[in-house]
Amino acid sequence: MAKNVITPRGEDFPRWYQDVIQKAELADNGPVRGTMVIRPYGYSIWERMQQAMDARIKAAGAKNAYFPLFIPESYLTREAEHVEGFSPELAVVTHAGGKRLEEPAVVRPTSETVIGEYMAKWVQSYRDLPLLLNQWANVVRWELRPRLFLRTSEFLWQEGHTAHATEEDARLYAKRIHEQVYAEFMRDELAMPVVLGRKTAKERFAGATNTLTCEGMMGDGKALQMGTSHELGQNFARAFDMNFLTEDNERELAWTTSWGTSTRMVGGLIMCHGDDAGLRVPPKIAPVQVLVMVVKDGEGVAAAARQIVDDLLAAGVRAEVDDRDTAFGRRAVDAELKGIPVRVEVGPRDLAAGSVTLARRIAGGKSPVPLGGLVDAVRAALVEDHDALYADALRRRDDRIQSVATIAEAAEAAATGWATLPWAAVGTEGEATLGESAITVRCLMLPDGSVPREEDEDGVLAVVARAY
Amino acid sequence: MAKNVITPRGEDFPRWYQDVIQKAELADNGPVRGTMVIRPYGYSIWERMQQAMDARIKAAGAKNAYFPLFIPESYLTREAEHVEGFSPELAVVTHAGGKRLEEPAVVRPTSETVIGEYMAKWVQSYRDLPLLLNQWANVVRWELRPRLFLRTSEFLWQEGHTAHATEEDARLYAKRIHEQVYAEFMRDELAMPVVLGRKTAKERFAGATNTLTCEGMMGDGKALQMGTSHELGQNFARAFDMNFLTEDNERELAWTTSWGTSTRMVGGLIMCHGDDAGLRVPPKIAPVQVLVMVVKDGEGVAAAARQIVDDLLAAGVRAEVDDRDTAFGRRAVDAELKGIPVRVEVGPRDLAAGSVTLARRIAGGKSPVPLGGLVDAVRAALVEDHDALYADALRRRDDRIQSVATIAEAAEAAATGWATLPWAAVGTEGEATLGESAITVRCLMLPDGSVPREEDEDGVLAVVARAY
Repeated sequence: MAKNVITPRGEDFPRWYQDVIQKAELADNGPVRGTMVIRPYGYSIWERMQQAMDARIKAAGAKNAYFPLFIPESYLTREAEHVEGFSPELAVVTHAGGKRLEEPAVVRPTSETVIGEYMAKWVQSYRDLPLLLNQWANVVRWELRPRLFLRTSEFLWQEGHTAHATEEDARLYAKRIHEQVYAEFMRDELAMPVVLGRKTAKERFAGATNTLTCEGMMGDGKALQMGTSHELGQNFARAFDMNFLTEDNERELAWTTSWGTSTRMVGGLIMCHGDDAGLRVPPKIAPVQVLVMVVKDGEGVAAAARQIVDDLLAAGVRAEVDDRDTAFGRRAVDAELKGIPVRVEVGPRDLAAGSVTLARRIAGGKSPVPLGGLVDAVRAALVEDHDALYADALRRRDDRIQSVATIAEAAEAAATGWATLPWAAVGTEGEATLGESAITVRCLMLPDGSVPREEDEDGVLAVVARAY
Repeated sequence: MAKNVITPRGEDFPRWYQDVIQKAELADNGPVRGTMVIRPYGYSIWERMQQAMDARIKAAGAKNAYFPLFIPESYLTREAEHVEGFSPELAVVTHAGGKRLEEPAVVRPTSETVIGEYMAKWVQSYRDLPLLLNQWANVVRWELRPRLFLRTSEFLWQEGHTAHATEEDARLYAKRIHEQVYAEFMRDELAMPVVLGRKTAKERFAGATNTLTCEGMMGDGKALQMGTSHELGQNFARAFDMNFLTEDNERELAWTTSWGTSTRMVGGLIMCHGDDAGLRVPPKIAPVQVLVMVVKDGEGVAAAARQIVDDLLAAGVRAEVDDRDTAFGRRAVDAELKGIPVRVEVGPRDLAAGSVTLARRIAGGKSPVPLGGLVDAVRAALVEDHDALYADALRRRDDRIQSVATIAEAAEAAATGWATLPWAAVGTEGEATLGESAITVRCLMLPDGSVPREEDEDGVLAVVARAY
C-alpha cells in the first residue's frame, strides 16, 4: 500500500534505499560532509542490535572497556601497513583549548594502536592471557562518497581486541567470534544468511595476517561486508612491545586479534529485507514487534487497545499503541514503511464481535483473530516471520550465486549477482582484472561453505561480486 | 585490611582518590593530554549506571538518537553566550581525508547546536511537540587540569534535548528530569543524598535561562556537581529558527531544555562512598554484588562455589566466582579495593559443617551462614548495605553543612564542608569575593530544601563550598 510513496527497487535501487531511510525516519545526513544523524526509529533498531550482540560478546568472555577518541599521530605510524591503510581517511585535530597542539591528535579510525599500547602495560605474564576486551564507540574514516549507514565519515561500532599466548589460541578466538558471535547473530537475530570466508591479501585489514568476513547479499545482488574478525599475528604486539613471561620464564610477544561490526549492519538489514513497501524488520530485532492501532474510535476502543498492549507486554512481546489523531490509512502506510512485523487493528465493530484484525507485514494479508487467542497468534506470527525472512533471503542468495569457471564468466555473473570460481583461476592477477570492472573477491571459501585455513588449499573458491 | 595498599583519606585525599582508581583498576590516563582509558571494572560500573539511567529517561518519555561528533564551527557562533562559554575548551579538526577542510569542524563539547538545527527541521506543528530526545555519546572539552572521571578532555555522557510548545511545559520537563530522573537515580541507585537547587547567573550553563543542579558532598567535604538540567528559554530555538504552527495557526518559537549526566558520576561514587580500604560500590549499581571465593581448595569446594554462584544468579543476584590461583589474602584485599559489597568464602571445613562465611564490605565483619539460608542472607545484606551507605553519606553531609550569616563565616565553613547563608547576604558581589578563595555558590535553595523558581524569592539560601 506504500508503493506510491517510495521508488520501486527495480526502478532505482539506490534511490529506493534513500527513500526508505527518509520515509521510515531512520536517518538524515549530518551537517559535516559524510556524517549521519540517526533518528529515534533508526537508533532503536541499532540499540536492539547492540543489546543482542553485546550479550553474545560477553558470553564469549570479552569485557567492555573504553579507550580515548584521540590517538597520538605517532601511534599510527608504528605499524607500517596500518598507517598506510588508514592515512587517506584520517581526521586530524591540530588545535585544542585555543592553542596549536604540539603533536596532532588523530580521531580514531579504529583503536588497534591505542589498545595495543595499554594491553602492553596490562599483559605481563601468561596468567594475564588471554585478555579479551571490547568497546562500543564512534570512529571516523573520511569518506569521499558517503552513503547513510553504509559508508559514513563517522560511524558507531563495536571493536573487540584480544591478546593471546599462542597463535593457535588467537586463531581459534578470531574464528569463534566470526562464527559463533557474528554469523549466528546475523542468522538468529537479523534473519540474514551470510557467507563466511577469508579475505584475499589485497582485501585484508591493514596490519592483519588474516581477515575473516561475513558477506551478505543485498536485494540488488551486490555484496555487503557485515562484519570482520582479524588475526593480527604479532604485528601490533611487536609495534607496541606487548610481551609476556611464559610459564618457562621466557619473554614472548603476544598474538592479537581484532573484530568489528557497525551501524553498517542497519544498512544491510534494510537492503536485505526491504521491499517496495519499505523496510521489513526481523521480529527478533524489531523495536516494535506489534503496533496496536485504533482503526476508528468508539466506546471502549482506546481502552481495549491499551489492554491488548498490556497483555502483549506481559507476554514478553514488544508492543505499542498507535492512537494518533491521523487518518488510519496514513498510519498503516507508516507502519508498513517502518517494517513493523505485526499490526493489530482494533475497531468498534470487530470488538463487538470479540475479535481484532491481525495485519502481517512479512507474510502479508489480514485476518480476524478472537481476542482470547491474540497473544498466541502474535507469537506464532513472529516466529513464522523470522523464518520466512531468512528463507526468502537464502533463496534469493542461492538463486543469484552462479558457479563459473572463468574470470569473464564471473564478471558477467557479477552484473546481477555473485559468482564462485576456483581461486586458482583468479589469483592476484585475476583479482586486479576484476577490479577494473569494480568487482571484488568478497572472500575465499571451501566448496562445503567452510573457511579455508590457507588461501592455497585444494579446492578453494573465490566468491566475487560488486559490493557496497 | 587494604589499609597499607592505598594512602589514607585523612593524609592526602587527592592521592587516595588516585590510588583507588589505580588499585581497583578503574581507569588510566590516556596518551593524549586529559583523556582517559576506562578499564573493564570501571566501565562495568558505568554500564550499570547507564542501564539504570536509560530506563528512567525512557520512562520519562524521551527517545534515544545519535547526532554527529563533528559540528560546523559556524553553528557554535549562532548563540552568543554558548560560543563564549565553550570557545576556550574546543578541539578543532582542520584536516581530514588528507586535505585542509574548508570550514573547520569542532568536536562536540555538547550538542545543543546541531540538535537545534535538526529539531528545527522536524518540528513543524504543535502536534510534533513535545519532542523528547536523548543521546549517549562522547564529548570533548579541553582540560588544563585533568583529573580522572572528574575533569577529562573527553568524557562519556547522556545529553537530553527537548522542545516544547510553552515555557511552562519546558520548565516542568526540566524539573521532572532534575527530580524524578537524576535525583531519584542518585538516591535509589547510587545511594547518594544530593542537594537540589538552581545555579546563580554566574554558574549557569552557557545559553541557559535556568540551570538546575544536583550537588553531592564528597568525603573531603567538597562539592561535586553530579548532573544538571537546563531551561534554555527560546535562545536556541531563535538561533536555529525552531518554530511551529500553533493550534491557532500562528508561528511561534519553541521552548527547549537540555540535561546531562556523565562519567563524572563514577568519580562522585568513589569520593562519596570510598573509605581507607578502597571503593565501596552501592549494591544496586555493583557489577558484582557477591564474590564467591574459594578460600582453600579441597574436594568439592570449587564445585560448591560454582553451585552457590548459580543459585545466586537464579535468585537475580549478580554473583561471580573467584577461583584464581592467587593467595587468598591478596584476593580478599582486591575485593575490598574494588568495593564488592558481599564476599562468600567457601572452604572445606565450613562446607563440611554445611555453612559458608559471609564477609561484608560495607557493614564490616564476617559471620557463618548455613548454606540453606545463604540466598536470603545475601539479599538482606544488599538491602541493608544500600541503606547504610545512604545513611552514612547523609549523616556526613548534614554534619558538615553549617548555617552561617556572613560571607566571612561561609568562607571559614567551606574549609571543611559546606555553608548555607541567605542569598541576599551574598549576591553577585559576595559571589565574586568567595571566588577569590576558590569557593563557589553551588546552588540556591529554599529553607525546606525545595528549589526556588526565582533567585530573588524570600528566604532563598545560597549553598557555598569548594568544589571539584
